[in-house]
Amino acid sequence: MKLERVCIVGAGAIGSLLVGHLGSVIETTVLTRRDEHAKALNDEGLRVSGKSELHPKVIASTNPADLGEIDLVIIATKAAAVEASAKSIQGHFPKAHVLMIQNGLGCEEIVKQYGDWPIISGVTFMSGTRHSDTHVEYELDTATWMGPWAESNANFEFVKEVEALINKSGLKAEAYEDLLPHQWSKLIFNSAVNSIAAITDLPHVKAFAKQDNIEDLGNLVFDMMNEAKAIAKARGVILADDPWEMNVKAVSQGTTDGEDYAHIPSMLDDVRNKRLTEVDWITGAIVREAKKANVPAPYHETLYRLVKAYEASWTFKGGSH
Amino acid sequence: MKLERVCIVGAGAIGSLLVGHLGSVIETTVLTRRDEHAKALNDEGLRVSGKSELHPKVIASTNPADLGEIDLVIIATKAAAVEASAKSIQGHFPKAHVLMIQNGLGCEEIVKQYGDWPIISGVTFMSGTRHSDTHVEYELDTATWMGPWAESNANFEFVKEVEALINKSGLKAEAYEDLLPHQWSKLIFNSAVNSIAAITDLPHVKAFAKQDNIEDLGNLVFDMMNEAKAIAKARGVILADDPWEMNVKAVSQGTTDGEDYAHIPSMLDDVRNKRLTEVDWITGAIVREAKKANVPAPYHETLYRLVKAYEASWTFKGGSH
Repeated sequence: MKLERVCIVGAGAIGSLLVGHLGSVIETTVLTRRDEHAKALNDEGLRVSGKSELHPKVIASTNPADLGEIDLVIIATKAAAVEASAKSIQGHFPKAHVLMIQNGLGCEEIVKQYGDWPIISGVTFMSGTRHSDTHVEYELDTATWMGPWAESNANFEFVKEVEALINKSGLKAEAYEDLLPHQWSKLIFNSAVNSIAAITDLPHVKAFAKQDNIEDLGNLVFDMMNEAKAIAKARGVILADDPWEMNVKAVSQGTTDGEDYAHIPSMLDDVRNKRLTEVDWITGAIVREAKKANVPAPYHETLYRLVKAYEASWTFKGGSH
Repeated sequence: MKLERVCIVGAGAIGSLLVGHLGSVIETTVLTRRDEHAKALNDEGLRVSGKSELHPKVIASTNPADLGEIDLVIIATKAAAVEASAKSIQGHFPKAHVLMIQNGLGCEEIVKQYGDWPIISGVTFMSGTRHSDTHVEYELDTATWMGPWAESNANFEFVKEVEALINKSGLKAEAYEDLLPHQWSKLIFNSAVNSIAAITDLPHVKAFAKQDNIEDLGNLVFDMMNEAKAIAKARGVILADDPWEMNVKAVSQGTTDGEDYAHIPSMLDDVRNKRLTEVDWITGAIVREAKKANVPAPYHETLYRLVKAYEASWTFKGGSH
């Protein structure tokens, strides 16, 4: 299958990292939401600083009809924007595969409603900071995992080509015939760590693994991850990595400057900036999987409801003693 | 038994309401922590405004030896200060009963370690705003419930005398031979409503009773209260009122000015002011009772751990992306 032209839908931090890297090794187009954004990218290209130094030219537009034939579409928006992204490409790019790289579960089903492209699932661990419409800084150079989504007819050989392309561009990719064991390990880890951080205003620190006393937070992380492991098992997923071990390992490491590890999970960053979180696709996704499997999920239901209520509190005015 | 002189330990909002009202009908003394507070009370008396207009003289000191013989000590500090209060009266007031009016469970055991006064348990629903060391405004004129604590030899006839005294003073009291059914109803209500409000920054509003969709907060309140009802049952307590009905009734009422009900529970007020909450004596108390009864308590453990972690976040500096 040919892989000559790609289109990145959405150029936030993750989208911009893909545009800047892939734009250096293949003809790369960008579908943006705003006209000024497309114009700036057409005029200035996209600059990557940090762990890569790149500055390719790209073709951008708010109209997919301007972008020609495409072999690979990468939907790089956040989960909440996936439906709008899929709608915007409806009826276009008939020969393309679509690669999804949102957190959580359930975005593929949304895309499927808008076209019959073969779909590749993905989970990314890289991160960057978007300084402007045309400049992104590449920070965490960890891999993006991908694999054919079981409910569409994506071709694994093509996924391997995408993997090779991404690796050639200076980013990191790993292709798996069955992504689910990897996707679920990360999902379970994210569901507990992100929702608890968002609700306690505590970054991912040692307290998340502390289990000395009854009130210690590590007990909740442990119980919540065990609950999700039982749900995964009931759904027939064998985990690639143990989420609790991932948690203990993460908070036990020091940082490069000798400080204690204190990562701010994306959901905590979202709530600190009063942005709606991706909880519906992370903790909420596990709640839905538990229902399908008919397995109880009190911890996930609780954290899901608390994050949703916390989001609701931002628009609530008033209160009295 | 004679009831001629009372001593209020701690004159915060609740303590000041008691001092101002009881001081108008009986010889009333106040044990304060700060010298200036005692001096101000001795010089100016205590003024009550709002639902009562009173201004009695009182005798105040930081030293219990200055206060003479006492028939009734009322410990009116918050739960976290009860140990210091009990310690401060150790060896004094040998003929007194001690009335406790903290939220939650477990303060009686602390007092017992410092003296063998007969202990009366109490739960108060009144509230006020403390404007200064010598002025409190009486707002919510709901009752204080009281009854002999089962593990000491408090006399119910004396409790009835205390009830009559409080009612005569302009406050409201109700004496029960068995307080537990009332105390637990309120405890279960408080545990869910306070901890969830503290962690979501949401006042007690209609959302606490909404159960239309899987993510609705009312489902959590309902599940958490059901869990506590099973714990109460396992501990042999028959509830006086159903906490879920108390919850639905509270949020369904309008306010006097036609707005939706939106009460700020004390634990939410505490966290908004970055004061440590009483969660150890409320949600934490239910977790301990569940352990004693060997009944699972995932919801209470979760909210207990989240509130403790949220408190811990205030002293945590830093975090990185």
